[in-house]
Amino acid sequence: MKSYRKELWFDTSNRRQYINITPEVNHCLAESGIQEGLILVNAMHITASVFINDDEQGLHRDFEVWLEKLAPEKPYNQYRHNGYEDNADAHLKRQIMGREVTVAITNGKLDLGPWEQIFYGEYDEKRKKRVLVKIIGE
Amino acid sequence: MKSYRKELWFDTSNRRQYINITPEVNHCLAESGIQEGLILVNAMHITASVFINDDEQGLHRDFEVWLEKLAPEKPYNQYRHNGYEDNADAHLKRQIMGREVTVAITNGKLDLGPWEQIFYGEYDEKRKKRVLVKIIGE
Amino acid sequence: MKSYRKELWFDTSNRRQYINITPEVNHCLAESGIQEGLILVNAMHITASVFINDDEQGLHRDFEVWLEKLAPEKPYNQYRHNGYEDNADAHLKRQIMGREVTVAITNGKLDLGPWEQIFYGEYDEKRKKRVLVKIIGE
Repeated sequence: MKSYRKELWFDTSNRRQYINITPEVNHCLAESGIQEGLILVNAMHITASVFINDDEQGLHRDFEVWLEKLAPEKPYNQYRHNGYEDNADAHLKRQIMGREVTVAITNGKLDLGPWEQIFYGEYDEKRKKRVLVKIIGE
Repeated sequence: MKSYRKELWFDTSNRRQYINITPEVNHCLAESGIQEGLILVNAMHITASVFINDDEQGLHRDFEVWLEKLAPEKPYNQYRHNGYEDNADAHLKRQIMGREVTVAITNGKLDLGPWEQIFYGEYDEKRKKRVLVKIIGE
Repeated sequence: MKSYRKELWFDTSNRRQYINITPEVNHCLAESGIQEGLILVNAMHITASVFINDDEQGLHRDFEVWLEKLAPEKPYNQYRHNGYEDNADAHLKRQIMGREVTVAITNGKLDLGPWEQIFYGEYDEKRKKRVLVKIIGE
């Protein structure tokens, strides 16, 4: 069994933002040389997500409006978590969008459906943040 | 390490529908001959889910009502994604219900709790759609 | 390839409750002796979750209020699932919070970000319940 590990760093310009990280994940897979196995891609921060959906700007605007409806950022004092912080909504949004994806590796490629793209979702921009890529296989 | 891959195809008769795919997943596992490992089962389409919950028709009706409350299909023009398409709600519903499950394999069996059943959830019926089954182990 | 399996048992005193199970998962990993691989931690019951978020009591109170808003427990008769049971809301809450997490193992440690902690989330206390820990690797 072979294994591979890499941290990817992302810096977002908005409090909430979606970044298509499929190219970086593909690069990790090529670097690993693994042909058959599983790849785990997870946010290392608890106010961020890794998820798979459509690379379409209109949908990303819909995510923004929808998540603000389900878990609004403001007023900050509606959340008990917001004593010294203001990011309780980000912890909730990330539960809906998810922490991680596991993707099959087949013949050295990410085994994705035709429209599947991997995204980093940030809900509380503060600083550079990390995504972990771990691959196991042969 | 052994690996196994199969695509399962499903054709739903309603826009939204839940199909218990545990028998097909069990069949894949038997075919693989793998005794110890992990199995990944994921929707290959971004308006569909694979998830684990109860095989109970009342609950599936509750899913329908609940998801329509959290991410209503109509009016279509409430979503920016719905320019040429009408399925923005399906992309949102799938975020709540999830893309994939990873299940342990122990002694050649799916290592599921007493009531755990694996479902394909369709939120935007249009055509035949695929689920990917990938198994790694020994 | 090595594999390891253990069931962890939890007994909650409230209908809804969050338990930090990171120490128990760390204990499993040490017991397994596995240095590189993946660990799957999943609820074996379909009205419970395993998820990763912050070990902060205010946030856990926010989870309680938020999940009750998105999928209220009462009135029981709003759900078709609640014929002989009263836990339809627990099946819905668990879809938002998730069934499982997959975590990388690197150098014999859980490869977690600085604030990531693993939780068992119970939404329908009735009896002792189980979490499955499965590790594969080398």
